[in-house]
This record gives sequence, structure tokens and C-alpha cells, in this order.
Amino acid sequence: MKFILLALISIAFAAAPTKAKKPIASDLVAESLASDWRQPVLENTLYLDLPAGRVVIELAPEFAPNHVQNIKALSQEKYWDGLAIVRVQDNYVVQWADPNAEKAESKRKLKGAKATLPAEFDVPLLAKIPFTPMPDKDVYAPETGFSNGFSVGRDAKTKRMWLLHCYGAIGAGRDVAPESGGGTELYAVIGHAPRHLDRNTTVVGRVIFGMEYLSSLSRGHGPLGFYDKGEANVPIKGLHLASDVPEKDRVKLEILRTDTPLFKKYIESRRNRVEDWFHFQAGHIDICNVTVPVRKIN
Amino acid sequence: MKFILLALISIAFAAAPTKAKKPIASDLVAESLASDWRQPVLENTLYLDLPAGRVVIELAPEFAPNHVQNIKALSQEKYWDGLAIVRVQDNYVVQWADPNAEKAESKRKLKGAKATLPAEFDVPLLAKIPFTPMPDKDVYAPETGFSNGFSVGRDAKTKRMWLLHCYGAIGAGRDVAPESGGGTELYAVIGHAPRHLDRNTTVVGRVIFGMEYLSSLSRGHGPLGFYDKGEANVPIKGLHLASDVPEKDRVKLEILRTDTPLFKKYIESRRNRVEDWFHFQAGHIDICNVTVPVRKIN
Repeated sequence: MKFILLALISIAFAAAPTKAKKPIASDLVAESLASDWRQPVLENTLYLDLPAGRVVIELAPEFAPNHVQNIKALSQEKYWDGLAIVRVQDNYVVQWADPNAEKAESKRKLKGAKATLPAEFDVPLLAKIPFTPMPDKDVYAPETGFSNGFSVGRDAKTKRMWLLHCYGAIGAGRDVAPESGGGTELYAVIGHAPRHLDRNTTVVGRVIFGMEYLSSLSRGHGPLGFYDKGEANVPIKGLHLASDVPEKDRVKLEILRTDTPLFKKYIESRRNRVEDWFHFQAGHIDICNVTVPVRKIN
Repeated sequence: MKFILLALISIAFAAAPTKAKKPIASDLVAESLASDWRQPVLENTLYLDLPAGRVVIELAPEFAPNHVQNIKALSQEKYWDGLAIVRVQDNYVVQWADPNAEKAESKRKLKGAKATLPAEFDVPLLAKIPFTPMPDKDVYAPETGFSNGFSVGRDAKTKRMWLLHCYGAIGAGRDVAPESGGGTELYAVIGHAPRHLDRNTTVVGRVIFGMEYLSSLSRGHGPLGFYDKGEANVPIKGLHLASDVPEKDRVKLEILRTDTPLFKKYIESRRNRVEDWFHFQAGHIDICNVTVPVRKIN
């Protein structure tokens, strides 16, 4: 069988260090120091437990402070436990919600969390937040780069910044009014980055582990990929903060820091691939094609 | 439940015709004429029959003439029937091949088709092929646009053109040598467009229907997403040309033409969304976010 196509792993064996003039991604990761990695903050980490497995989500309080606070409150009052994934639209989004949201008598009641919030489509650009800019022009945003592992758009003129809808981004669903979201319904991007959604919804975080348990779900066949009446919603066993889960039940992860010299080299290693397999170097890269490495520890 | 996020279908009801100044995508499709659509050529259409359903692939003979010819020969000698999907790498590719390709005694034998071919990573730019250019700059290619429904990159300096690795693109796997592909192993893009593969493999076509039967497959957990020993390959029931299938068993499809004034309007409707739901218009669009409409007829 041919080991076709880029090969982050196998190429590490194929390319002798003396041959590659620039480092390749897998070598950079292999040579990284402990200080090149960070552990996600437990209080900003969500576990979405589905029948097939656990999806780990890192929240972004710097980019959606009120939504993140509300999502934490929702998780702590167990708002989502027993609710369901109700929509899987191919090349677009998976979405979870209360299937009875429109039935006054049977819908899930809120305890202290809010049903809706003012939009946080973008926030003031803060210089104190680390930002590693991308080397190439983006199709959609004046400037893009990485802040704390998140892909970010910025506009120096308006002095605003916002999270991008790359693969795995988690956003708050809403109706037509900007202030109709709040976090009770969330979606995850499972296809080509729908960047036209940038600054149209509040992005609250991103999937850092277990993405396959969302992306491989059966597609819904109702309008917009909602599950049809004959199709089964996917039950949510629980959606809890890692800090609320006993230590023995946590997933121990490390994420490559994005504010280091190593990460700049990593971007370049994905931008111009020097592995033997590649005969044409792109010389450019779309930020959504830079996947921040995550590793499971112990 | 909130009908969150763009809504090609529901927005058609929400936006009164008098309100929207520019047409929205669903209105354009609804108002299209019969002449705005075409049927895929049966001799260039492949049916990949999997246990869960049928994937329909349109081949691109203008962009990979020798590979397409060889793939047709392979399908006619039933090369793939009973072989399998052996790799599903999240946010990347699904790949099918002969699981016994490396076992001389049990591997699938070729009859008249070729095992390998010279690469067709790009081809001479032909003015006779219709080309609807995209209005925005692309991150990777000097110029992009649509030719016969396919997303295409072009370079006026080198006078070359090539197919892009957008969602659903079908390419020929290969080893390190450019001439080590040929079509016996094929892959489909199931994630964010891996545009660094452009001009590094021969793209032979794209999925036009049934994409979900590839994108929702369980991910493989071996290196590069190959199914591990404990995981089951997904058997291929058949991979045949539509012209070799009895008419009663064919899927009747129509594809929106990409060489029409309507299609230019369609691109603009996806570039600047005037639906009520959108509060921010992107003003730009990535070619891989323009999905060419396909409809099933009777």
C-alpha cells in the first residue's frame, strides 16, 4: 500500500536530517522543549461526553468573556446533560441544543444562567494578548494570526479582534437578532472553514481533542442538516468543566504554545513543505491549515 | 429551537423579495432556467457504492486525461470491486485501495489498466475551456475560478492550470516519485481544503453527490488515519461508470453550470450575504466556500 500524501509521521523516517535544509513539522515537534507546551486551564476546558467518546473543548475567555462565563454557569447547572446533538450538516456544522426548546412545559429550565446575551462577535484589540501573525495575506481578514492557540482575525483600523471559524471552532447559535445567542445552543465547525460566519456569531472556543466524535456523526437529512423525525438525535451524556470532573477522570493534554520561536518555525514548516514527498512548495498558507499540535500525556 | 446560522433554505422564507437589494443564493437557484443546468456526462461519472450508500464522482478529463482514461479502464475491469476504504484521517482524506497491495500472491491483478502513470499535477492552460474567475485574491494560486463545475487554479505566466483540493476533490495517491500514482489508489478530501497538495498529486475529479458516505466514516487510528489492525476496512461494493450501470439504477443529477451570468451572481450571493441573518458582510470569498449546487431529478 502506498503511503501517499504528506506524512507527518512517516516522513520523519524518510527525510534524513542532513538532507532537509529547513526543519519539517514532525522534527520540530520531536525536538520541542517542555517549555514549548502548555496545559489547558481546567476552568476553561469543557468535556462534551457523547456515546462514542469525549470531545475536549478549550474556551476563549479573552474573546467572549460573557459567553464563556455563561457557558460555565450552564455546565455547572448541568443544563446540557441529557440534551442532544440535533443537527449535523455536511461540510458545515454539528449543533447541540434542547430538542424541546420550543415547548414551554417540557423545555430545560435555566437556574442561574442566562438564556441570551449581547453579542460578542468581536472585542477590542488588546496589545497584551500574545499574537503570532501569519506570513501571508488572508482572503477574509486584514490580519490573521494565533493568540493562545486560537486562530484570530484583527483589524488595526477598527482596533478589533475576533476568533476565526476554522475547523473545530465552537460558536454560539443565534436567531436573527445579534443578542439572541448566549451559549445554550452551541455548534462546531466540521468542514471547510465557513469564514463568512466570522463576526456574525460569537465564537467561544475550539475543539482540542476528540474532534472525530463530532465530525463522523451521521448527517441529518432535514433542512439545514437537522435530524429528521425518523432520525435519532445523538444524546449528550454530559457537558462539564474539567475542573468539575474528578482528577482521575480528566484527559491530560498539552498544547503547543503559539507564542514561541518554535511555533513560527512550525508555521513555516507547514507553509513550505520540504519533505521528500513534496515536489511543489506552496509558498503560502491559509491560517486554517495550521493545526496546533496537541498531545496526550501519561 | 433556533434556526441559527446562515440558512440557504429557511432564509428564503424570511427575506421578503422587496427587502433584499441583491439576490440571495436560494432565490437565484429557484429562479434559474433549465439552461442554467447540465447533466454530468455518463461516461465521466463514477458510482462508488459503499454499504451505507452511493457516492457520485464526476471525472475531469480536461485536467487529467491519462489518469481519467486509466480510472475508466480500472472500473471496467472491476478492479475496485471487493477492495476497501483503508484510511480515514480526520480533517484530511478518505482513501481506498487494495488492502493486499503489498502481497504479491493475493493482490488484485490488473488486466489492461496501468499500475502507474506519469504525473498530471497540472496541464497546459487552454483558452477553449470555460473559466469563470473568482473576484478575490487566493492565498495559494495566482488565479482561481470555475471550469465545468471544477475549482481551478491558473498561472498566466507559466500557462498552466490545475484542479484545487477543495472539499470533495478526488485525487490519485502516490509514493514519493511523481510517476508512482495512476489511479489504483484514490482519495477524497473530507476536511478543510489541503491546498498544499495542489500540484503535488493528480486531481482527477470531485464528489457531486453522497459526500456524507465518505465524510461520516469512522476515523482510522493507525498512523495517518489508516485503519488499525483491530478496525475494519470499509468494503467497496463496486466502483463503476454510470454508463456501465443499467439506466434504471442510475442517479439522475443536474449541476448548476458555472459558465453563466447566473453563476457569477451566485458567487456574489455567497460573497456578500444579504440575508437578514447576516450582520457583517465578508466582502470576500475563498473559492472552496463556493459550493456548486447539484440537484436530484425525478
